[in-house]
Amino acid sequence: MQTIQEYVEANKQRFLDELFDLLRLPSVSADPKFKGDVEKTAAFVAEKLKEAGADNVEICQTAGYPIVYGEKIIDPALPTVLTYGHYDVQPADPYELWDTPPFEPTIRDGKIYARGSADDKGQFYMHVKAFEYMMKNNALPCNIKFMIEGEEEVGSINLGNFVKENKEKLKADVIVISDTSMISLETPSLETGLRGLSYVEVEVTGPNRDLHSGVYGGAVANPATILAKLIASLHDEHNHIAIPGFYDDVVELTQEERDELNKAPFEIEAYQEDLGIQEVWGEEGYSTIERTGTRPTLEVNGIWGGYIGEGAKTVLPSKAYAKISMRLVPNQNSQRITDLFKKHFEAIAPDCVKVEVKPHHGGEPVVTPTDSIAYKAAEKALTETFGIKPIPTRGGGSIPIVALFEEVLGLKTVLLGFGLNSDNLHSPNEKYGVENYLKGISTIPLFHKYYAELNK
Amino acid sequence: MQTIQEYVEANKQRFLDELFDLLRLPSVSADPKFKGDVEKTAAFVAEKLKEAGADNVEICQTAGYPIVYGEKIIDPALPTVLTYGHYDVQPADPYELWDTPPFEPTIRDGKIYARGSADDKGQFYMHVKAFEYMMKNNALPCNIKFMIEGEEEVGSINLGNFVKENKEKLKADVIVISDTSMISLETPSLETGLRGLSYVEVEVTGPNRDLHSGVYGGAVANPATILAKLIASLHDEHNHIAIPGFYDDVVELTQEERDELNKAPFEIEAYQEDLGIQEVWGEEGYSTIERTGTRPTLEVNGIWGGYIGEGAKTVLPSKAYAKISMRLVPNQNSQRITDLFKKHFEAIAPDCVKVEVKPHHGGEPVVTPTDSIAYKAAEKALTETFGIKPIPTRGGGSIPIVALFEEVLGLKTVLLGFGLNSDNLHSPNEKYGVENYLKGISTIPLFHKYYAELNK
Repeated sequence: MQTIQEYVEANKQRFLDELFDLLRLPSVSADPKFKGDVEKTAAFVAEKLKEAGADNVEICQTAGYPIVYGEKIIDPALPTVLTYGHYDVQPADPYELWDTPPFEPTIRDGKIYARGSADDKGQFYMHVKAFEYMMKNNALPCNIKFMIEGEEEVGSINLGNFVKENKEKLKADVIVISDTSMISLETPSLETGLRGLSYVEVEVTGPNRDLHSGVYGGAVANPATILAKLIASLHDEHNHIAIPGFYDDVVELTQEERDELNKAPFEIEAYQEDLGIQEVWGEEGYSTIERTGTRPTLEVNGIWGGYIGEGAKTVLPSKAYAKISMRLVPNQNSQRITDLFKKHFEAIAPDCVKVEVKPHHGGEPVVTPTDSIAYKAAEKALTETFGIKPIPTRGGGSIPIVALFEEVLGLKTVLLGFGLNSDNLHSPNEKYGVENYLKGISTIPLFHKYYAELNK
Repeated sequence: MQTIQEYVEANKQRFLDELFDLLRLPSVSADPKFKGDVEKTAAFVAEKLKEAGADNVEICQTAGYPIVYGEKIIDPALPTVLTYGHYDVQPADPYELWDTPPFEPTIRDGKIYARGSADDKGQFYMHVKAFEYMMKNNALPCNIKFMIEGEEEVGSINLGNFVKENKEKLKADVIVISDTSMISLETPSLETGLRGLSYVEVEVTGPNRDLHSGVYGGAVANPATILAKLIASLHDEHNHIAIPGFYDDVVELTQEERDELNKAPFEIEAYQEDLGIQEVWGEEGYSTIERTGTRPTLEVNGIWGGYIGEGAKTVLPSKAYAKISMRLVPNQNSQRITDLFKKHFEAIAPDCVKVEVKPHHGGEPVVTPTDSIAYKAAEKALTETFGIKPIPTRGGGSIPIVALFEEVLGLKTVLLGFGLNSDNLHSPNEKYGVENYLKGISTIPLFHKYYAELNK
């Protein structure tokens, strides 16, 4: 029997070639013009699962893009791991900011540059190749199920129904997802929490039409100015969020937990240099690691109003808008926070304008347990591959389906991510390290092995 | 000899027909695709000046669109009135918001609907027809010169050079311009001031690329949020402009002048209802009339940053922008105010972002004297036509060339405007009252008559 290291060494060029074939498919779920490509990608994934040895492979149709399912049940008495991933990707525009085309994967400096390389094609495909190894070497220590969806980048809109309607099929003991980051190859880490999300759009209306700013300026409230004042008031002078009740349900970390998180290696100079900023910013009394992982935030994702073309136009606009999202932490509730925001924003708006707050979408925060068998198995597996025990971290992003899985399937998740924060997710020049990819493939069979052993 | 009233009565259909011909020419100076039409319009104006009896009519070429000149010198010993106007118009888009096409003039409810009807074709053409009357009836009491330009709507970019190079040709005793508004036909008024302008664009840069708001939100300054805070700070809680030194050169009106201005009829309920607002807004301690006419203002004309498309994207933008213009009053100086803004805006920006302030364009404020012969002549003429003495008002808009004429030619201006603030200048459905047009034609020969008489 080959060890996984031997197998990866012997097959790494093929592993890369197959991933490149997958990355060449522009499976952009947000843009209908890629519909054919998204469907082709589902078929590609199904084919690869079959080749790797999965049974009952199925392209499950939904109201949107299909979910690819596959399984290998070796013994119903053994525990079952459900692997989740997604084969769709973010839009690649603006194309002109890419150094090489987003759907022509290229390796430079040991990184695979392509849209979806890290998020999530490069990461879920590690599981397919690890499964292939276990099948070929008769090393599968537990049952395994795959659920790879095609709508994660558009809010997993049909996954909830699918999961509710297929509880029996999806029955498992734990979920494993590789769609997050670790600190670095030198400092492996395991995310133990994800933030929730409340996303709203606000519209401020002043006069019923655009006005000449010479004739009416100074006498009629300008909705862009009022919107600026409203947004400015949402953080106080300590950069705390100034919405009454916003922090009510936040579970404060103990000093011990905070100390543990802050042990993660973090160089403020390197961080600032990478982003081209002089200074970090954030809630007073918390470190950058805490701000991004353990504290709720409020960010303006977009703002617009009035004349935004070339040159000058002296208009006093009728309307101004903003898209604002809040990241949530346990035990905040997305619906409650959206309601608090709406109530507050409407209350502080002066009578000289009208405001409207429309909710976009949301998701609940989750904390994954660090005392579970699955977490311990992941910890052991990473320790074996990297030679050092992984640090628990809190991720700043949101994967709303983690809360969904817990609610509907009653299952906890292990976030076994091999990406890096610097991988340019959702941005031009998305990348994923070749080393991250191959180390991921090496680690996954160990996770299954230890998970099965610890369950005995 | 016919009186002007008799002449207008006898010729009013022709006066409207000729104006309609002028309005049918889409002389949009901002858009190169109308180049031929702008040039045709210059030729049309020259032809009409000749027909009315002007000598030395000339289409004076400039680096841009031509300036149409014409004159009638009856006696070098008599005073000379220089009439300024512009034959170019604002772009008409968005076309779909017009009830009838912008270049197919139509009369509805006694108003001429067309782009340029009030600004400024309908207004400068009154002078051509009044001149025609005076020539036909041997009633010209002074010398008259016309200078009708074709680039007012793009900042009169070539007028400065033309005026400097033609000081002798343009020699006169006063300038008269009909390109402003009166309160109403029942309450004639004369504008006695125009505000200046400083127009800037600001750019706030945070991180060197758009970031994932989950990964970086809460730890890196968001340029849209910072821009909102900076804009919010530009007005204090009394809606005074909070730029140090901003008011230093403002000449405060005397209580008497303020009382005089506030005698103008103004109904706050009708004003609010017309604009669809619950409440007016503005600098504490000043009435709406004062706010728009006599006080400097600061308005956001446009703001943008981040994701502004449909739906939601969780981006922490790299950049946010705003276009901001300030209206100035005597004795503020456009360059000095632009400098003060730039210095202040850069000073208040926190170190977590970079800001850049780019000046667009500007113009100086002017006050026209109310104790001059020309003002008194205009006052008498309006009193005779409307049966009531006109009220002096301060216009909120800017006509930068008025300051230019004073500087280069040493001439004061009379703002003999017959438009209304509700004429939708620069907006869809621009209109000009038939009555305003005909009363204007009736008033102008009286102005010349009294101006000549008072000069004796």
